[in-house]
Amino acid sequence: MLEQALNYALAHQDAQLEELKAFVSIPSISAQPQHRDDITRTAKWLTAHLLSIGMQRAQVMPTSGHPVVYGEWLGAGKDKPTVLIYGHYDVQPADPFELWLSDPFKPEVRGQNLYGRGTSDDKGPLFAHVKAVEAYLKTSGKLPVNIKFIIEGEEEVGSPSLDPFIEANSKLLAANTVMISDTSIPSPDLPALTYALRGLCYLEVEVVGPQRDLHSGSFGGAVYNPIQALSEIIVGMKDAHGHITIPGFYDSVHPLSDEERRVLAEAPFDEIGFRADAGIPSTWGEEGYTVLEQITARPTLDCNGIWGGYTGEGSKTVLPSKATAKISMRLVPDQDPEEIYKLIRAHVLRVAPPQVKVTVRSLHGGKPAIVNINGRELKAAATAMERAFGRKPVFVREGGSIPVVTTFKHVLGIPSVLMGLGLPDDNLHSPNEKFYLPNFYRGIQASIHFIDELAQA
Amino acid sequence: MLEQALNYALAHQDAQLEELKAFVSIPSISAQPQHRDDITRTAKWLTAHLLSIGMQRAQVMPTSGHPVVYGEWLGAGKDKPTVLIYGHYDVQPADPFELWLSDPFKPEVRGQNLYGRGTSDDKGPLFAHVKAVEAYLKTSGKLPVNIKFIIEGEEEVGSPSLDPFIEANSKLLAANTVMISDTSIPSPDLPALTYALRGLCYLEVEVVGPQRDLHSGSFGGAVYNPIQALSEIIVGMKDAHGHITIPGFYDSVHPLSDEERRVLAEAPFDEIGFRADAGIPSTWGEEGYTVLEQITARPTLDCNGIWGGYTGEGSKTVLPSKATAKISMRLVPDQDPEEIYKLIRAHVLRVAPPQVKVTVRSLHGGKPAIVNINGRELKAAATAMERAFGRKPVFVREGGSIPVVTTFKHVLGIPSVLMGLGLPDDNLHSPNEKFYLPNFYRGIQASIHFIDELAQA
Repeated sequence: MLEQALNYALAHQDAQLEELKAFVSIPSISAQPQHRDDITRTAKWLTAHLLSIGMQRAQVMPTSGHPVVYGEWLGAGKDKPTVLIYGHYDVQPADPFELWLSDPFKPEVRGQNLYGRGTSDDKGPLFAHVKAVEAYLKTSGKLPVNIKFIIEGEEEVGSPSLDPFIEANSKLLAANTVMISDTSIPSPDLPALTYALRGLCYLEVEVVGPQRDLHSGSFGGAVYNPIQALSEIIVGMKDAHGHITIPGFYDSVHPLSDEERRVLAEAPFDEIGFRADAGIPSTWGEEGYTVLEQITARPTLDCNGIWGGYTGEGSKTVLPSKATAKISMRLVPDQDPEEIYKLIRAHVLRVAPPQVKVTVRSLHGGKPAIVNINGRELKAAATAMERAFGRKPVFVREGGSIPVVTTFKHVLGIPSVLMGLGLPDDNLHSPNEKFYLPNFYRGIQASIHFIDELAQA
Repeated sequence: MLEQALNYALAHQDAQLEELKAFVSIPSISAQPQHRDDITRTAKWLTAHLLSIGMQRAQVMPTSGHPVVYGEWLGAGKDKPTVLIYGHYDVQPADPFELWLSDPFKPEVRGQNLYGRGTSDDKGPLFAHVKAVEAYLKTSGKLPVNIKFIIEGEEEVGSPSLDPFIEANSKLLAANTVMISDTSIPSPDLPALTYALRGLCYLEVEVVGPQRDLHSGSFGGAVYNPIQALSEIIVGMKDAHGHITIPGFYDSVHPLSDEERRVLAEAPFDEIGFRADAGIPSTWGEEGYTVLEQITARPTLDCNGIWGGYTGEGSKTVLPSKATAKISMRLVPDQDPEEIYKLIRAHVLRVAPPQVKVTVRSLHGGKPAIVNINGRELKAAATAMERAFGRKPVFVREGGSIPVVTTFKHVLGIPSVLMGLGLPDDNLHSPNEKFYLPNFYRGIQASIHFIDELAQA
C-alpha cells in the first residue's frame, strides 16, 4: 500500500502542479470584503476536490465568518488512529501589485518555484497532504489510518471563528493527532519539526497619581509622578542579568534538559542574520542561555507599549494624572497564563508606591505548547521527513504562539505535528510569494510516509 | 506729595471703578482673531488714558503680533530711579458664556467684587498702578520717580512677541525696577510678595532599539527593549528619597538659609488643601524639606510625557523600535538651564545600555529668578504693602516660571517686584472672573507708597 502510494505520487507530479495552480488561481483573500465570493468559491472547489480524490464526506460548514471545509475518510476503522489535517485556504491581500513579477493569481513556474499568492501560505503545503491522501485512495482504495480535514478561511485575519467552531464540533473533529504544515524549515536540505511553542500572558498596568493633570511648576516636587511609578514597576521586573524577578515566575518552568539543549543546538541559527534583521548592534538576554534558547525555550517579559502625559510637539509642563503600559510575557511549559497573571498582579500591587493607585488588567492569555520529542507522533513525523528529504529533521522551538495548536490541545486533547514545508525566503505576506516545488513533492512523500508510520506505531 | 496722592486716590474710588469698568468692557481676547479690532481698540483706549492722566508720552507700538502700549513720565530726573510697570491688556476667551452670572464684558459689582473677564487678570491690578500714577500727577503735577509702562497684548497666548520687543527696545525700557501685579496673595488680609521663581530645563529623550517594530514572539528574550531602557533611564534619575542623582545637578543650588526657611514658613500653606487639589492621598518629595520648600525652593525633575510601542486597544505583541519621554526640571538659583541640560545629556548617554541608541534634545529652557529679600526694591514694596494692607506681607516663592521676569533680568538687568493683588478664588481663565475691590483700592495705595518708598531708598 505504501509503495503504490509513493509511486503514484511521483508519477502524477504534473497533475498535482496543475491542480495546485487551479487552487491558487482563486483569490481567496479573507481580509477584503470584495473577495467574499472568491472565499465561497474556494471552499466549494476544495470540497469538490476532496470528494474527487475519494474522501467519504466533504462539506462547506458555516461559521460566524468565512466557512470551514470539513472532510473525512474513516474507513480504517475505530482501532486505527485518526489524523486531523489542519490548513487554511484563505490568503493575504496581494497588493502592492506593481511589485509582482507575475500576476499573483495566475501562478507561474519560474525555475524550481511556483509563484503566486498563497502558494506557500498555505495552499501548497496543505495541498501536499491532500495529494498524499489521494495517492492512497487512488491506488489501494483505502488508507491505513482515518483522516479528517479541517481547513479554515480566516487564518489571515486572526481566525476569529475557529475556536468556537472547534468547540462546537469537538466530537466531529475527534482524532489522535493533528498534522499542520504552516511553518517553515531552515533550508531545502534541512527538514525541521517544531515541537514547542511559547504561550502568552498579556496585561495592562495603569498607574493613577493626581486626579487630573497638574502644573509641574505648582506641584512638581511633592507629587509622586505616575510615569516615574510605572517606570519603577517595569524596571523592577527584571534584574541586570535579564532574569525576571517576579517571585514565583520560574516555579513551573521545566529546566531545559541536556538532551533538549543538544537537540536545539543542532538547528542552524544565524545570529548575525538575527541581529541584522532586528537592526541591533548586539543581543541582550537572560544570562546562561544561547540566543536561540532565549527566544524560543525561555520565558521572557517585554513592555509592548507605554503612554502617559503630554506626547505632542514641544514642551508642555504637565505632571500627568496617569500612565499606562502594556506588558506581556512569553511563557514556556508548564507556565499557566492565569497563574502567571495572578503572580504579576500581586507583585505589581505590592511594589507600587502608596501615593498612586495601580490597576492591572489581563488582556490575553495563551498556554505554551510542547510535544514530546520521543512520543510516537513526532517519531513518526521524523521518520517520514527523513525518508522524503533524505536527512533527519532537526527539532526546533518557535518563540511565538500558534493559537490553534493550543486549541487542539485543550479542546480535543491532542498533540500537533508541525511539519514545515515552506522556506524562509518564500516571501510570505509580500509580493512574489513562492513555493519551492521540490518541497511540495517531498511534502507529499513525507505525508504518505507519516500516515504509514503512524499506522504502525 | 505722598499724602495728597493717597487722599486723591481715596476720594476718587467711584471714578476709578467706572474707568476700570470701561477698560474691562472691551473684549480684548488675544486668542481669537475675531477680536483683533477689540485688541487695537483697547491699546488705543489705554494710550489715550495714559495721556489723560498726565503721562508725557504714550503710544501704541507695533510688534509682529498684537501691539504693546508704551508710556513714560521722566520728569523726576536722571538722578531718580525709574520704575517700569509691566502688565497685559489682553484677556482669556470668555466661553462658556452660559456659566457666567453676568455678561463677561458688561462688568458688574456684586458685593465687594467686580465681575467680568479680565477684572483680575490683569486689567484690575494693572489699572491700580495707572491710578496711583494719576494720583501723583493730578495732585502735585509730578512723581518722585520716573515711570515707564510696558503693557502687552499677548500674555494669554504665551507672549510670542514680547522678548523680541524688549530686546529691540532695551534703551527705551531702561529702568531700575520692574513692578508687576499679575500674581495673587493668599487672602484679602494677607499681602504677599513673590521673591523667587523656578527656572526650567525641558528635554526629550528618544531611545531606539531595533530598527523596526519586532514580533515579541520571534525576538523577545534577546533584544533590549527600548521601553525598558527608557524606564531605567527615568528611574535612574532619582533615588528612593526623591533626591536627583544626576552627577553635578545640585552643584549650583544655593542652599536654603535659615532665614529663608523661617521666612517661607511664615507664609500660610494649606497642605490638606494641596493634597485635595491634586487628588492624592499623600505627598512625596525630597526628604528633609517641607512640601512648600519642595514645590518652590528646591529643584525637581518630572517626566511630563512618555510614549512608545502599541498604545491602542487590546493586545499587540510588538517589541517596539523606540520609546520617547519628555522630561523637565524645575530649577532654582543659580542653576543654569544650559549647564543642566549638558549634565543630563551626558548622564543619559553614559548610563544608556550599548544595545540602544539614545538621542537627547533640548526643547526649552528658562533661568530661575530670585530677588534679594533684603534689597531696596523688596523692602520698599514690603513697606508699601504693609501701609496699604495694614499688615506685613509674607515672602513667597512660586514653583513655576514667569518668563518676562527672566527677560527683564537678563535683557534689562533689573529685578522684578511681584506685588500680587488677585485672590486664589478670582476664577482666572474661568467663568465669573472677579476682582476683589478692596484689593483694587489697597493696590492703588500700595503703589503710591511704593513709589514714595523707592524715591527715598
